[in-house]
Amino acid sequence: MTTAVETKLEVRWGECDPAGIVYHPAYIDWFSVARMHFLSAYGVHYMESFHDGRIQVVVTDVTCKYVKTLRAEDQIVVVARLVEISRARMKFAYEVFDDSGATCAKGYTRHAFVEHGTMRPVNLQRTAPELWEKLTVLPLSPEE
Amino acid sequence: MTTAVETKLEVRWGECDPAGIVYHPAYIDWFSVARMHFLSAYGVHYMESFHDGRIQVVVTDVTCKYVKTLRAEDQIVVVARLVEISRARMKFAYEVFDDSGATCAKGYTRHAFVEHGTMRPVNLQRTAPELWEKLTVLPLSPEE
Amino acid sequence: MTTAVETKLEVRWGECDPAGIVYHPAYIDWFSVARMHFLSAYGVHYMESFHDGRIQVVVTDVTCKYVKTLRAEDQIVVVARLVEISRARMKFAYEVFDDSGATCAKGYTRHAFVEHGTMRPVNLQRTAPELWEKLTVLPLSPEE
Amino acid sequence: MTTAVETKLEVRWGECDPAGIVYHPAYIDWFSVARMHFLSAYGVHYMESFHDGRIQVVVTDVTCKYVKTLRAEDQIVVVARLVEISRARMKFAYEVFDDSGATCAKGYTRHAFVEHGTMRPVNLQRTAPELWEKLTVLPLSPEE
Repeated sequence: MTTAVETKLEVRWGECDPAGIVYHPAYIDWFSVARMHFLSAYGVHYMESFHDGRIQVVVTDVTCKYVKTLRAEDQIVVVARLVEISRARMKFAYEVFDDSGATCAKGYTRHAFVEHGTMRPVNLQRTAPELWEKLTVLPLSPEE
Repeated sequence: MTTAVETKLEVRWGECDPAGIVYHPAYIDWFSVARMHFLSAYGVHYMESFHDGRIQVVVTDVTCKYVKTLRAEDQIVVVARLVEISRARMKFAYEVFDDSGATCAKGYTRHAFVEHGTMRPVNLQRTAPELWEKLTVLPLSPEE
Repeated sequence: MTTAVETKLEVRWGECDPAGIVYHPAYIDWFSVARMHFLSAYGVHYMESFHDGRIQVVVTDVTCKYVKTLRAEDQIVVVARLVEISRARMKFAYEVFDDSGATCAKGYTRHAFVEHGTMRPVNLQRTAPELWEKLTVLPLSPEE
Repeated sequence: MTTAVETKLEVRWGECDPAGIVYHPAYIDWFSVARMHFLSAYGVHYMESFHDGRIQVVVTDVTCKYVKTLRAEDQIVVVARLVEISRARMKFAYEVFDDSGATCAKGYTRHAFVEHGTMRPVNLQRTAPELWEKLTVLPLSPEE
């Protein structure tokens, strides 16, 4: 799985709920962290490459399957893989592991490239050809 | 759609991100608010009925499809419906509308009843028969 | 206390932590909600008046004293008052009450007017004279 | 400043707001992360030592002074120091630095030891003498 990028995180107290476990939307936030790390690992820093260029990568779909609960101070790894890319869209897959290597959650996010402010879809190759070039060399993983 | 419960919310500044729109995990949090309101509208107050009885309704799956962006101070309605229930599980459907009535997002959450602390699945009818009685009269909606 | 503005909120499950009570930064978020309601109650809608005009009201100081814990589904009132204002700065005071009228928390936020993007301080009277006119008629409360 | 503990973090997209900068309550959350790291650096793991023993360290006061804005993907260091401790209370001081070493924020939190559930204050030496022993050897810093 050489095309995946791993992000190590420690579960924060504030990410947990009164059930004593991680509140489920927190995993979706970790997916964002892992996705940005995936991109930056390949030289595409989101803030400089997208945000400062007034392009946003908005989320159009998210799914997450929760397998094993986690709690504060747990050490986790979030693995991100790019599974689809076009001039208009991207799709990422994620898996969250605890420190025993057990899968705690799995999910996907789909994205569209849009113009900051208007939120209108953009063809990235036309709008930001240099950025598009960088994305074309990102390693793609099979959907699974 | 008389079996649905509506929750009116105002988008908070802190729920939005540097793209100027609601950060996508916030919708998943709104689903929780809407789900608790669905239950309390039918006399099942989560904290008293579940939490204080040491039963938690954990999320096992979540999906959300994002259709239209929202920003701070927008007035929204989150509609929650119960679409499946058994002694071990529940499934809810949600739809988020802006003040023009346009759909902004749609999603589902699946849940399991578990014992607080151990997180072991429970048969609600056996573990909490009175609470189970209350749940059996909750109005069910077709999946769609 | 006719110059204060009250915001009614219900504590969210996701605002609570493994101690079973509201996680303390959530109160600071409520202060933002209450501050925006204070402004909009007097005709100053933050998104249109400040954000869309490329002026931000950034926080320079916050304090909060926590008096009584709260938990999910509690009904609360957050009272916001403006206690200082100049062409460059504002200061707000807040008090959080539970449904018995007991004080749960008290705090302050100080703010500076800055230009969006550069984050440079602005003299609001010079930069946005019409907005400044609206602010000059906001009711001021004594610091206490 | 050998008695301080440093926590390296990367600013998350979801911690930022529509002004394009870190939303101010996020710093208060970082203080929690840094405080737990301070304790665990000296062998006191919060979840095992406090939470599992049904003692919580609740926050009674927080202050934060914001000096320099931060945005997503910024690399930061949060320095935590213990400045007061008694059988009933603790006080921590924090400073947030960006990667140029500039101070971005400074703050304090005060805490009380309470019993989980009842939230009643506890004398830690009496309630949890072994834990209290561990705390007595924590390095204390001058208030500033």
